[in-house]
Amino acid sequence: MTQVTPATQATIGDSEFDRDTAVTRRDEGVYDTDLSAGWTITNAVNGGYLLAVLGRALADALPHSDPFTVSAHYLTASRPGPAVIRTDVARTGRTLSTGQASLFQYDDNGHEVERIRVLASYGDLDSLPDDVRTTAKPPVFPPMDRCFGPQDGPTPVSGSSSITERLMLKLDPSTLGWALGAPSGKGEMRAWLGLADGRDADPLSLLLAVDALPPTAFELGISGWVPTIELTVHVRSRPAPGPLRVSLITRNLAGGFLEEDAEVWDSADRLVAQSRQLARVRLG
Amino acid sequence: MTQVTPATQATIGDSEFDRDTAVTRRDEGVYDTDLSAGWTITNAVNGGYLLAVLGRALADALPHSDPFTVSAHYLTASRPGPAVIRTDVARTGRTLSTGQASLFQYDDNGHEVERIRVLASYGDLDSLPDDVRTTAKPPVFPPMDRCFGPQDGPTPVSGSSSITERLMLKLDPSTLGWALGAPSGKGEMRAWLGLADGRDADPLSLLLAVDALPPTAFELGISGWVPTIELTVHVRSRPAPGPLRVSLITRNLAGGFLEEDAEVWDSADRLVAQSRQLARVRLG
Repeated sequence: MTQVTPATQATIGDSEFDRDTAVTRRDEGVYDTDLSAGWTITNAVNGGYLLAVLGRALADALPHSDPFTVSAHYLTASRPGPAVIRTDVARTGRTLSTGQASLFQYDDNGHEVERIRVLASYGDLDSLPDDVRTTAKPPVFPPMDRCFGPQDGPTPVSGSSSITERLMLKLDPSTLGWALGAPSGKGEMRAWLGLADGRDADPLSLLLAVDALPPTAFELGISGWVPTIELTVHVRSRPAPGPLRVSLITRNLAGGFLEEDAEVWDSADRLVAQSRQLARVRLG
Repeated sequence: MTQVTPATQATIGDSEFDRDTAVTRRDEGVYDTDLSAGWTITNAVNGGYLLAVLGRALADALPHSDPFTVSAHYLTASRPGPAVIRTDVARTGRTLSTGQASLFQYDDNGHEVERIRVLASYGDLDSLPDDVRTTAKPPVFPPMDRCFGPQDGPTPVSGSSSITERLMLKLDPSTLGWALGAPSGKGEMRAWLGLADGRDADPLSLLLAVDALPPTAFELGISGWVPTIELTVHVRSRPAPGPLRVSLITRNLAGGFLEEDAEVWDSADRLVAQSRQLARVRLG
């Protein structure tokens, strides 16, 4: 059998995601970048996209190239446009290196404002042993052609989000109640996920994947903005080609905050990333 | 009914834990401390105790006093003895402030070595609304008098750990197979937990609580050292007086790493803290 790849299919290293996360080294540990308006939700720059941009800078600043664990604290809202990233190497080791990175932009008064700060440990995913004793199971939900994405709605949502044009997102119908005005009340969200241009997932795009679905808060009946305070990702394996399955769960909505756990599974049924975020909720 | 409190019962602010996590401000944002040998496991300083020491420094450096989310990357192994903590304030806001802290010690050659670096967001737990929509349930396991701790063993373990003298730790018998040479194979560990001197839990001691149980790796049949690479805690509520219940779960042991999730429940059945760590495993 011959598999036909469309001539337009983007590849890892040559895709919109790669161009929009590019960083240019200005000086030792200092990088310029330009946050694209293509990864916004209404006007907010997606937190996972920001993580990928910072991840690119750290992959250059550290002797290892794969993010193993990245912890981000979101300080102020980023905007599309120029930004500078300053990195600092905390420790370099044989198998792991740790560093930090901060992204800055100028505010309307010309003052530099820090948007996000991350601490991260990097390694080499390809050097890890093959043992897998995972007891977690992949999420069970319908095949992609029976799931639904933003493109399947009757009319485009007004003030819509340009990130939806860049994602292949097909949501499990059982976590879509919110879109029909009938949220399930369960803190769950599941979807098939890829990049719309067909670029396969890699460790860097997993940083985007953990924060690319609608928030579980929607299924909990909360329709407002749920800003991320802190997000930590563990990348556990290089993903196989093909679409990802992402499963989000919230177990504790209390005191105006919630946690959101993500699992990302690849086409080979391997758990390739796990994340947890703390987000703020404004209850009506 | 009258509840009799022993005259020797320690209190929040006046206990060994408080004395051993004390920091002294040397300069703006710089703190001296002395890591106690009382919180070691064999020779290693417990990672949760270290987190509490750094948490004390950040509570002083930031305008808010309660840790909401703390992300720690462990760089090199700490030793009992003097240490210096350097903090940096990233952002102060009305409800949340974010900062970072690093703990340094001198190595045998007199060089300063960084042991651990944390990024943390602090707030005021008492200012949060009362809403609780938690779907998570407290772990179910036997009452304390039918659980077992290090003191219940026939003989003290040689090279034993001084931290065990400072903890009230009573493990669920169903997660104790490892101690009898028959690990369950399930990545679970559950225990009643308190401080041995009767000091009640507070947000700071929750940073200790999430890393105070034997690792889930023991029940997975791994007997070696499982060093923490990264640990993030979310403190969600001020704990009620009385013993805590701590439940650990590992779902993904693969490629020489595992994640360990902790839930900490207080005596009022409230989920007061959640944590996740990435740890390294050396398989035999």
